[in-house]
Amino acid sequence: MLDYKLLEALAAVVDAGGFDKAGDMLGISQPAISQRIRTLEVRLGQPVLVRSQTPRATPAGQRLLNHVHQVRLLERDLTGSIPSLAEPATRFRVALNADSLATWWASAVGNFCASEGILLDMVVEDQDVGLRRMREGDVAACLCSSPQPVAGARCIPLGTMTYLPLATPDYSRHHFSEGLTWASLQSAPAIVFGPNDQLQHRFLARVGYQGKFPHHLCPSSEGFVKLALAGMGYGMIPEIQAREHIEANRLVSIAPGSGLDVPLYWHFWRHGGELMSRLTRKLQDSTELV
Amino acid sequence: MLDYKLLEALAAVVDAGGFDKAGDMLGISQPAISQRIRTLEVRLGQPVLVRSQTPRATPAGQRLLNHVHQVRLLERDLTGSIPSLAEPATRFRVALNADSLATWWASAVGNFCASEGILLDMVVEDQDVGLRRMREGDVAACLCSSPQPVAGARCIPLGTMTYLPLATPDYSRHHFSEGLTWASLQSAPAIVFGPNDQLQHRFLARVGYQGKFPHHLCPSSEGFVKLALAGMGYGMIPEIQAREHIEANRLVSIAPGSGLDVPLYWHFWRHGGELMSRLTRKLQDSTELV
Repeated sequence: MLDYKLLEALAAVVDAGGFDKAGDMLGISQPAISQRIRTLEVRLGQPVLVRSQTPRATPAGQRLLNHVHQVRLLERDLTGSIPSLAEPATRFRVALNADSLATWWASAVGNFCASEGILLDMVVEDQDVGLRRMREGDVAACLCSSPQPVAGARCIPLGTMTYLPLATPDYSRHHFSEGLTWASLQSAPAIVFGPNDQLQHRFLARVGYQGKFPHHLCPSSEGFVKLALAGMGYGMIPEIQAREHIEANRLVSIAPGSGLDVPLYWHFWRHGGELMSRLTRKLQDSTELV
Repeated sequence: MLDYKLLEALAAVVDAGGFDKAGDMLGISQPAISQRIRTLEVRLGQPVLVRSQTPRATPAGQRLLNHVHQVRLLERDLTGSIPSLAEPATRFRVALNADSLATWWASAVGNFCASEGILLDMVVEDQDVGLRRMREGDVAACLCSSPQPVAGARCIPLGTMTYLPLATPDYSRHHFSEGLTWASLQSAPAIVFGPNDQLQHRFLARVGYQGKFPHHLCPSSEGFVKLALAGMGYGMIPEIQAREHIEANRLVSIAPGSGLDVPLYWHFWRHGGELMSRLTRKLQDSTELV
């Protein structure tokens, strides 16, 4: 069998982001970590880490990490049937989109994680980066809107989030009193999550506008809503996040009937074991997505 | 004078994250952008960009970017007195901490930005990265808890955010029925924002605990609160973000009297012009910080 002490050291360096912190994580010294990584590389005949400021895995190292993640999930099943084997808790790294984390995610998985003793490492990534980290073995699962499974993984639909184009009533009156005209869309500030956010473009295409538009960039899900509430712009906000503001008339749709549905898919390793299967069923049962 | 067409191309490549997108931003072709960058480098006798997948500025390029940011702020003052010079809006890039963006930031700056026609590019960074981006000329201002100004910049205190150690009443009863004992802190899951988050460590040091502790990692301010509300762990949450949950008894302090005050400082370029001075006054007037 492989020497899992060495693989564990590799995973710790990548997870902790450095040799020192990896030593802290495993309760051994930094030189001991370095020694294990060197031993692994000598056995493999190639480097497993790029020694940048934050060390990252080489392609060979990534394949090892992927393997470690899967072994850990399988171990978790085993210790379920032999409790005395169990370590205090299972760590589980998941890439997901910011809006899910800010809205329905915790209520969907909370009880399950608490009762199973699972600790989550959540990383917020847009879809391309999330799936790349999955391919690289850096995360055990990825929640995003791509229906394309990565090799060796499964991908199931969880439902959709509906996004509405919202602004304060004042903002809407001030900028769109004559509707979404070309002139108004050219001058009214939008709020966009980040440079790769396609929702605003899809919305504008849908209302027949193709030009440039002024916009704030706000890479925070809650910050996004606060900016809209402060009258700084209009933006595409998940209906489940805006519901109470809509009911209280603090936010209104600037184009009723032109909401966008964004499907969400759960990507997970095919051999992720029983724990992954149960977490997946939990997510499928979540009632907040439509 | 310097050739600002060239400097504008450099800023666009870094802001947009690529030559193609920079062309879109300035309304010129990608080869025209490349040509401007090459011309700039020939004049300088050194490269201004590292041609990685996402191009970034070399140290020389960073000094140029810093200069461009300051010139833009000064131009903004000029066009205030000569309105016909004005471009449609001023873009303003600010690095800030996630919790400010998720809580008081928008209400403090919203009216000001809307009435002045300012568009914000917000980037969420922890303090070290935020100040590095400021030194590198990549942002015009930085909101963080460091009182150390970077060279050429000013730094003023804005107030403090108070963080409280919160969990649901159920969670608190289940894990801390006998108070914060060594055994309970070793087994009760905490929620931590990220690997560099020092709040949890400061809190534990304050209650006299120095060992390891199990924790979820959740790099989202609103997600953090949702995890706590879902009973997944306890964590340090800004009082202004948790107030309504505390009043409704959905969250309680697990250690009354051991909140932590985090000071916030506003870093901005000394020659940032009149607009920056007014934004700074606006922030100083914000009443949400204590």
